[in-house]
Amino acid sequence: MSGQGRFLSFEGIDGSGKSTQARRLAEYLKSAGHDVVFTREPGGSAGAEDIRKLVLEGDADRWSPATELLLFTAARRDHLERLILPALDAGQIVISDRYVDSTRIYQGVSRGDLRRQVDQLHELMIGREADLTILIDMDPKIGLSRAFARQGGEERFETMGQDMHQKMREGFLDLAAQAPERIKVIDGARTVDEVAEDVRAVVDAFLS
Amino acid sequence: MSGQGRFLSFEGIDGSGKSTQARRLAEYLKSAGHDVVFTREPGGSAGAEDIRKLVLEGDADRWSPATELLLFTAARRDHLERLILPALDAGQIVISDRYVDSTRIYQGVSRGDLRRQVDQLHELMIGREADLTILIDMDPKIGLSRAFARQGGEERFETMGQDMHQKMREGFLDLAAQAPERIKVIDGARTVDEVAEDVRAVVDAFLS
Repeated sequence: MSGQGRFLSFEGIDGSGKSTQARRLAEYLKSAGHDVVFTREPGGSAGAEDIRKLVLEGDADRWSPATELLLFTAARRDHLERLILPALDAGQIVISDRYVDSTRIYQGVSRGDLRRQVDQLHELMIGREADLTILIDMDPKIGLSRAFARQGGEERFETMGQDMHQKMREGFLDLAAQAPERIKVIDGARTVDEVAEDVRAVVDAFLS
Repeated sequence: MSGQGRFLSFEGIDGSGKSTQARRLAEYLKSAGHDVVFTREPGGSAGAEDIRKLVLEGDADRWSPATELLLFTAARRDHLERLILPALDAGQIVISDRYVDSTRIYQGVSRGDLRRQVDQLHELMIGREADLTILIDMDPKIGLSRAFARQGGEERFETMGQDMHQKMREGFLDLAAQAPERIKVIDGARTVDEVAEDVRAVVDAFLS
């Protein structure tokens, strides 16, 4: 653990509400007097945001899963060196909306079968896990209808993505089962206030 | 070895004449009836050229040595998947002006002490060496004065870079000593025609 700071990450499938919950927690901790840095991946530092743009723009097959994994790892290294570690060294609480668990699931499960490479790259070039990870768990049926309602999206996407999102949900739950000390699973299929209350309880226990 | 093709790389310090020699060899092999693809690193494919721009533009300290290594590895993966391997599968001769040995020296020796990471990343995410590497060897005093004469450069750069270039020359020669079957050292401190004749002899022997 670097410095006196604490590094918290939020994970979950699209539409799980993790970004809302991450922001809510940041506000709560600030109001409780903590020095909080709120950030996100992919991106989070100037260089990492440039890499994010490079990865996300252009055709869907512009990058292979393996090249994409390397680009996201480069972005994470920049984010870690330029933002996360300096903040932790200064004693701040860093809250990141997504971190390496998202890569384990997106590059390791959904985009390609790169799970072994994700872990080895992490060990070789990153080496820092979050101290505490909040996994907002949700049935993809609920999550996807939320996500698409938000974008005024179409029914067919819901159906199309459901199997993949079910695999991703299971992947996140497997990670949590393998690292129960670090990853805390919170049921996201309730009101934002109810979920936020559970998140606060878990984080308060962790920080005290 | 992929397909029936052959993969040749050229390496050497700045000003060694490797790019000139690589192009000369490509012309020679084409005139001898071979199907030749000439390429270069960093870059060489559309995606890799975009990553190259991202790495080389902006301030010198925009990227840490580790992030730069990840970006160059991402570029190489794209170059390999999109250009080199398809060409080899089609039976072509690929000639690349720089390949992974440059990363071993630039990221492993001159920009940072990342030699172990360079090799592990290569094994994990690239896994393909050139079949034959031509190392154009030259005293940095000669190489640098050539390089700066070409750019109308200044005397002080010559002096400044000499120690580092000496270390890099030694690094390349060490690599050649470790992989004598793959890396052939050619004395670059002669006329372009004399060096080209030696390159042709080595490559003709390799191809026959």
